[in-house]
Amino acid sequence: MRLSQAFTLIEPGPVVLVTTNDGRKNNVMTISWTMVVDFTPLFALTTGPWNYSFAALRKTKECVIAIPTVDLLDKVVGVGTCSGADTDKFARFKLTPVKGRQVKAPLIRECLANIECKVVDIVRKHSIVVLEGVAAHFDASRREKRTLHAVGDGSFIVDGRKLNRRRMMAAKIPPGI
Amino acid sequence: MRLSQAFTLIEPGPVVLVTTNDGRKNNVMTISWTMVVDFTPLFALTTGPWNYSFAALRKTKECVIAIPTVDLLDKVVGVGTCSGADTDKFARFKLTPVKGRQVKAPLIRECLANIECKVVDIVRKHSIVVLEGVAAHFDASRREKRTLHAVGDGSFIVDGRKLNRRRMMAAKIPPGI
Repeated sequence: MRLSQAFTLIEPGPVVLVTTNDGRKNNVMTISWTMVVDFTPLFALTTGPWNYSFAALRKTKECVIAIPTVDLLDKVVGVGTCSGADTDKFARFKLTPVKGRQVKAPLIRECLANIECKVVDIVRKHSIVVLEGVAAHFDASRREKRTLHAVGDGSFIVDGRKLNRRRMMAAKIPPGI
Repeated sequence: MRLSQAFTLIEPGPVVLVTTNDGRKNNVMTISWTMVVDFTPLFALTTGPWNYSFAALRKTKECVIAIPTVDLLDKVVGVGTCSGADTDKFARFKLTPVKGRQVKAPLIRECLANIECKVVDIVRKHSIVVLEGVAAHFDASRREKRTLHAVGDGSFIVDGRKLNRRRMMAAKIPPGI
């Protein structure tokens, strides 16, 4: 996948898995508080010291945003309800780490897409981490492409049908998208 | 709707309409770059001087985040592809402004939900606006509740089915949600 398309993975607001590698081991967290900040691409996510992964994110200034699909829901919830402090989440949830091109944090083979990211800023006051995507991977061979949207009350909305408004939107779509 | 539930409107990542009132007239913009920052609730959205609404947002430090549903798609796209600089968007798209309780920016009657917000910070460097929700409204009488997720390529994903993982997630759900 071209890096210029990576924002289209985050713009719809799916729940994501964010991986880190602190130099000793891989870890992964579930995050639904993310947004696009620029097409370049830049992303923001909200996290802080309450997440065990935050120390690795701050130290290494790298992570991977992986996009899971509906068939992975129980892994997504499992990852989000235990801590890397006492759990090897890749082993426990049978996620396969794959070496990236630009960062040491692992891609997740079971996910639909993976975006390798570098931390460009941490806005301490609001616990907002700003990330620049540096490589993007999309598993086009995967049949299941429906992502999940966390509601926050313990329920998840699955992607439904897609509606096309490309002609009406033409002036607002970046070149090549 | 209780204010403590308002984050559940934004966490799934729907495209939203953001209204402002600059003291003279109402305006509205379409935004899909939003995220939750805290349950209190705090939200972030990305916008800047390239949006005509930004001047009103900066000056008044108030806005309303309105949540449209699938039946409003063409209005959402229309609002997003013209400017308040030369268009009365409420009139053009037949949106009905409704007086809020805490802010002068209008609610939108046609939307499923509206969150009245105050600007608590603008992170200039990244064009990130941090908002505090101060009142929330939900139209429970509305039959159509499916929201829209912008992909960024001119297509929109409609909410599909909802999956329940409340029991697995219990420890992570804020009290009363």
